[in-house]
Amino acid sequence: MSAYDYDLFVIGGGSGGVRAARVAASLGKKVAIAEEYRFGGTCVIRGCVPKKLFVYASQFAEAFEDAQGYGWTVGETRFDWPKLIAAKDAEIERLEGIYQSNVNKAGAEIFADRAVLEGPHEIRLIEDGRRVTADKIIIATGGRPNRHPAMPGAEHCITSEEAFHLKELPKRIAVLGGGYIAVEFANIFHGLGVDTTLVYRGKEILQGFDDDLRHELHQAMDKKGLRVHCCDTFERVDMRGDGTLAATAKSGEVFVVDQVMLAIGRTANTENLGCEAAGVALDARGAIKVDDYSRTSAENIYAIGDVTHRVQLTPVAIHEAMCLIETIYHDRPTKPDYDTIATAVFSQPELGVVGLTECVAAERFDEIEIYRAAFRPMKNTLSGRDGRMLMKLVVDAKSRRVLGAHVLGHDAGELAQILAVTVKAGLTKDAFDATMAVHPTAAEELVTMYTPSYRVKGGERV
Amino acid sequence: MSAYDYDLFVIGGGSGGVRAARVAASLGKKVAIAEEYRFGGTCVIRGCVPKKLFVYASQFAEAFEDAQGYGWTVGETRFDWPKLIAAKDAEIERLEGIYQSNVNKAGAEIFADRAVLEGPHEIRLIEDGRRVTADKIIIATGGRPNRHPAMPGAEHCITSEEAFHLKELPKRIAVLGGGYIAVEFANIFHGLGVDTTLVYRGKEILQGFDDDLRHELHQAMDKKGLRVHCCDTFERVDMRGDGTLAATAKSGEVFVVDQVMLAIGRTANTENLGCEAAGVALDARGAIKVDDYSRTSAENIYAIGDVTHRVQLTPVAIHEAMCLIETIYHDRPTKPDYDTIATAVFSQPELGVVGLTECVAAERFDEIEIYRAAFRPMKNTLSGRDGRMLMKLVVDAKSRRVLGAHVLGHDAGELAQILAVTVKAGLTKDAFDATMAVHPTAAEELVTMYTPSYRVKGGERV
Repeated sequence: MSAYDYDLFVIGGGSGGVRAARVAASLGKKVAIAEEYRFGGTCVIRGCVPKKLFVYASQFAEAFEDAQGYGWTVGETRFDWPKLIAAKDAEIERLEGIYQSNVNKAGAEIFADRAVLEGPHEIRLIEDGRRVTADKIIIATGGRPNRHPAMPGAEHCITSEEAFHLKELPKRIAVLGGGYIAVEFANIFHGLGVDTTLVYRGKEILQGFDDDLRHELHQAMDKKGLRVHCCDTFERVDMRGDGTLAATAKSGEVFVVDQVMLAIGRTANTENLGCEAAGVALDARGAIKVDDYSRTSAENIYAIGDVTHRVQLTPVAIHEAMCLIETIYHDRPTKPDYDTIATAVFSQPELGVVGLTECVAAERFDEIEIYRAAFRPMKNTLSGRDGRMLMKLVVDAKSRRVLGAHVLGHDAGELAQILAVTVKAGLTKDAFDATMAVHPTAAEELVTMYTPSYRVKGGERV
Repeated sequence: MSAYDYDLFVIGGGSGGVRAARVAASLGKKVAIAEEYRFGGTCVIRGCVPKKLFVYASQFAEAFEDAQGYGWTVGETRFDWPKLIAAKDAEIERLEGIYQSNVNKAGAEIFADRAVLEGPHEIRLIEDGRRVTADKIIIATGGRPNRHPAMPGAEHCITSEEAFHLKELPKRIAVLGGGYIAVEFANIFHGLGVDTTLVYRGKEILQGFDDDLRHELHQAMDKKGLRVHCCDTFERVDMRGDGTLAATAKSGEVFVVDQVMLAIGRTANTENLGCEAAGVALDARGAIKVDDYSRTSAENIYAIGDVTHRVQLTPVAIHEAMCLIETIYHDRPTKPDYDTIATAVFSQPELGVVGLTECVAAERFDEIEIYRAAFRPMKNTLSGRDGRMLMKLVVDAKSRRVLGAHVLGHDAGELAQILAVTVKAGLTKDAFDATMAVHPTAAEELVTMYTPSYRVKGGERV
């Protein structure tokens, strides 16, 4: 019999927390999990899932246009934002129920409450008032959008969280930021008919992604009428008499819009969590410091997911949870593996990538080969749409190993998932060359690029 | 100086012939290519390409329905078949021009003429009347749909060739056959609003594909109102007084329709080609017999593509052409590699597969593991569409090698292309397990199936 009320107490019912609680409970551990808001976390409630539903919704406008090139006449179309929100909310509620019921089924105790640390083993449930104890604690409280309080007028702005619940669709929106959330939402709003401007302080959107794809996506957004302003940022946002907003940029330009959305990074949820009382140290940005095994500075307390500011992705949080279970309950210390994580940006066109960019590979390897294809996908022929697909393989010239694979265009995220298997496994370009094409597909370009488009040697294109 | 007019004469301007002619010419060989109809062959003119354009056209009906679940109201839609045909024809003409200009650019001489063999090195150009000679000859005349002349009333029926040029869209169609062409066209017609029935003599459509996917696709077609009748065939087709057709099945059932389309296999184009005069032997079905290096029974004559009845796919014909060039002009005898060819069926839902089916793997391996996921893809949630995706990995229990990967659902063909790289390279299931998910995608299911759904040992499911 344990000296504690629980073997494991998990704070936060997002992807990472729920997985850890479920698996630990299924191993026979006495587990509790506290969630103050809704089960499912950022991913299910106000992130990946509702975002992707919005993406689907926003793609129909192009489908209606494309249909005409294929012989269809489409009557007048209208979009009803509250109808989308209601449908999305119903689906999210369904998923939330599944999350919660999975936790229940596994036998974990659920507290619909805010949990705060009062010591290394002590947890206070705020609403309930009770104090409970646990042998081990996992902090999985996630993160939230940075609201940029230093900017005058920040209070007039929304973030992705409010974007999921706007009462009405704005006619004009300005999105501040150049990361994947900014880019995805700008494309969603544009697709839904909103006059959209993206403003980003950096030189090019989507820092960290392959430069080629960044430029190509930027151009594609420009072409479809989604304005992208780089090297600029907002200095203040003022509400005008008519309720519209005037966002004044550093460049002096003033953007008059109905909404300003901030997508300028995310903050770890560590305030008023009792980290100090429990001996859990934070880093300079307020995220929880962890070692290679997700252990905090308190011996029996662990942290996983976005609250740790490692790689902020749902599958990574789940992976960290599974590794942690191995470490603490199967006596097999297991480090999460952050090598070669594929990601997608659900912009339109979509972006899916895995492994090294050309730029990074050129720094790390003496000589690399770039195999690059830019083409109009067959779907865009009859529709007359001028969007191109871009595919790129980055190959180490010496070992022939495929270091990175980068796709911009239809289904890029789906392709990136399977490309990730090939890059993670260290396959060579020869494995691609030996593969028969599937015709007609877009992906066949990836196995039919037999000669390098160019080489980069000692950092110089040759 | 060669004793012949040409180093190489290619008969047939399809994918295989054009590739062989182009590459040989680019090596400095004196090359001619004869095409009696249109450059591009089955693939470009009346196969893969126009078929896929039709598939795109036929998918919009579902998009219009799906849009409603996402908040859209779509006015009345109409489909104009002649408009699609005209758009398709313009695109095919464009592609045909590219094919022809590529041959020109490579320096091959083009004969828009029918070429007939008159001896091992002698070719007669029928329209032109000239007789020319060549050191080597490649036969790449392709194939055509079997018109089932033994069936009374076959003359009233169309095949895929006429389907691309119908003056008007039938209201009702019966498609005879269960292979990929039958299945794809049935789905196209259904998507375009045609009342469609598929009749197939076998027990289940798509023989040779994984049984699980065959059943699931059959059910999906049934569910959307596309009737599939297996274990039956047409015994006769009669034209009625009003111009409609009555197709009488073996079962006694009579199908009254506007068109009957036959998709019951393809025949090699070897008639009146002069094979006998040149010493080129045919097999029992009229296809050209070749050895492992695409050489016919005549020492200097080769055959590639559908005319040989090996694997009838565009990329395979191109691969055979490239291998043949290696063999005859680079002194590197190269056998085409038919191992692990991925294929797609552009049905709706789509099917994409590579490697062994469960059934074949169970026969060849002592014990296999099946990893199987059937789920409603996210796109189908708000749309209310009840179609499921099905994904399956077939794994050798002993070596952990992934023997086959099978996908039914959105983008299955694209996924199969990249899955083909993994299966061809002999990756193990561990490589899939080690890969981080990309969320939310459908393909992430393929890397998150950690425990087998079931095993098959000694041919028995355990």
